[in-house]
Amino acid sequence: MSDMIDVPQPYLLFLGDADDTTYLKTGLGLRDWAPALCLAEHKCDGAAASLGLPAMHPREARAAGARSLVLAAASIGGAIRPGWIPYLVEALEAGLDIVSGAHDRLSDDPLLKRVAQAKGRRLIDVRTPPPGLPIATGRRRNGKRLLTVGTDCALGKKYTALALAEAFRARGLAADFRATGQTGIIIAGSGIPIDAVVSDFVAGAAEALSPDADPAHWDVIEGQGSLFHPSYAGVSLGLLHGSQPDVLVLCHAHGRQRIVGLPDYPLPSIGRAIELTLEQARLTNPQVRCAGVSLNTAGLSTEEAAVAIIALSHEWGVAVADPMRPGAAFDQLVEACLA
Amino acid sequence: MSDMIDVPQPYLLFLGDADDTTYLKTGLGLRDWAPALCLAEHKCDGAAASLGLPAMHPREARAAGARSLVLAAASIGGAIRPGWIPYLVEALEAGLDIVSGAHDRLSDDPLLKRVAQAKGRRLIDVRTPPPGLPIATGRRRNGKRLLTVGTDCALGKKYTALALAEAFRARGLAADFRATGQTGIIIAGSGIPIDAVVSDFVAGAAEALSPDADPAHWDVIEGQGSLFHPSYAGVSLGLLHGSQPDVLVLCHAHGRQRIVGLPDYPLPSIGRAIELTLEQARLTNPQVRCAGVSLNTAGLSTEEAAVAIIALSHEWGVAVADPMRPGAAFDQLVEACLA
Repeated sequence: MSDMIDVPQPYLLFLGDADDTTYLKTGLGLRDWAPALCLAEHKCDGAAASLGLPAMHPREARAAGARSLVLAAASIGGAIRPGWIPYLVEALEAGLDIVSGAHDRLSDDPLLKRVAQAKGRRLIDVRTPPPGLPIATGRRRNGKRLLTVGTDCALGKKYTALALAEAFRARGLAADFRATGQTGIIIAGSGIPIDAVVSDFVAGAAEALSPDADPAHWDVIEGQGSLFHPSYAGVSLGLLHGSQPDVLVLCHAHGRQRIVGLPDYPLPSIGRAIELTLEQARLTNPQVRCAGVSLNTAGLSTEEAAVAIIALSHEWGVAVADPMRPGAAFDQLVEACLA
Repeated sequence: MSDMIDVPQPYLLFLGDADDTTYLKTGLGLRDWAPALCLAEHKCDGAAASLGLPAMHPREARAAGARSLVLAAASIGGAIRPGWIPYLVEALEAGLDIVSGAHDRLSDDPLLKRVAQAKGRRLIDVRTPPPGLPIATGRRRNGKRLLTVGTDCALGKKYTALALAEAFRARGLAADFRATGQTGIIIAGSGIPIDAVVSDFVAGAAEALSPDADPAHWDVIEGQGSLFHPSYAGVSLGLLHGSQPDVLVLCHAHGRQRIVGLPDYPLPSIGRAIELTLEQARLTNPQVRCAGVSLNTAGLSTEEAAVAIIALSHEWGVAVADPMRPGAAFDQLVEACLA
């Protein structure tokens, strides 16, 4: 799609000068969710961290089929560290594009810009929306759409969408994961960083992200923010309206009572969250329904998670599952989505 | 405010090469709503249109106290016409800043940029948000806030806010009109073009626009878009949450049945519009209330308008008035806001 970011795959993951994996969030997400895309890792001389991938120099990685080097390390403030530049130049000279989710723009580095131009390589900043996004039209499109929404930020909307798209394909359905955030875009190889889009164009960007498709095709769209978050609800509403979802899956973190970082803001009840989100979603798709709840049970034992899932499924009267824990509950959530 | 656009007043209005006032929307809004700011008009040699203001050359206008030249003419596509540049250069040399709401950026014109730098003048693009806007915190602020919201776009949210702020001041209250769109910003002399803000920062921009104030002070905030518009609802929700309004005034156009330009989208009933908007607004201000409806009756005769206002006030059970028609109904709406 011309109006989506497009990232050449597979990848050589660049770990920078990280000394442990706490700075490798992007890299861990990629390794865990798209192992087939992660050919190898490369890092600054003497850096200690590793993702356990084979170590390759950019030339070897290119020869092995890699198309891009991905900045897999996050530095404080999202900077591109000066010490990384020579390694990135080597990658460009080896024939790899560079992919970054850092706040600093690759193209703001004069050396990188010059070498990329000379070598005909691309510097891809996945935080920068594509140009020319349209204003939303509200027109209905063919194809089926599922959007993950949340009671808060940072509780599994991306991974829920990835797991559902995978499960749909495992059942022989045509399904695409549609990425709206930087890690998702690098995993999917395309997408639009929705929270970086100028507000007037957010719903239009969401329409462009899940275009007209075959009536049997599923777009499984990564949600952003939460309608219940005082900082980001507008982003979530624009994405909801432009996505025109047929099915919503509400993501929630087990035991979370308040918006992370905003203790004055309690989370809504699951019932109210479903009701208000459906009410808003009906503006652009009157047939929308909620298939159930994706419950993040990280930190619970297998037994505790199973008990919590059954208890809350009864309490809330909907299908509940943790996509990180395959099994009967998740199969039921998938069936509820497809029902 | 460092995080608001700041526009030096009063103004010399530049009418460009417009041959009739249909291209002078910004100029007409300024002349009607801020006559005291409109010292004079200036235009290209031979242009026919006029706002009926005294004609002054930039040097005379500067001597008469003007601080900025405002582009009061809209060209197709929001371009800055090449034929205007010599006139803008003259204005900079005469000591005026240039203020533009055009899509083209003043600072993208190399000649204007060079002359402005040489003369120490500013090129102010009111479509360009100020840098460094914060993420919303959701923290409550002192002072009272009123936000105009709408059943659709383009039905009087800006003029309703201007009229209410004026009426509050006429009653001896401390009140500021807070502008969120380009014409409003030029009228107020400051503000933030909210629909041009990156979506992640819309609620934060709204918090910056109506900062902590004296408990008796009113910010009367210009609404944008509509929660019921499939293209712009996200903008409206971010503005609603960041504004934390104590009072909402719902703006509606008499007889309008469908979203302008989107015939598949019916307008909500007044009751539902009030209910859903209040429900959303309670997230950041649980005490929010709706004072009534601002009804745009343009096109109706005085008698027809009076009849419609009384009839709909009974039908909807709230105060209804057209701020463009001063009188008892408007006074009642103002009292309802202050109650």
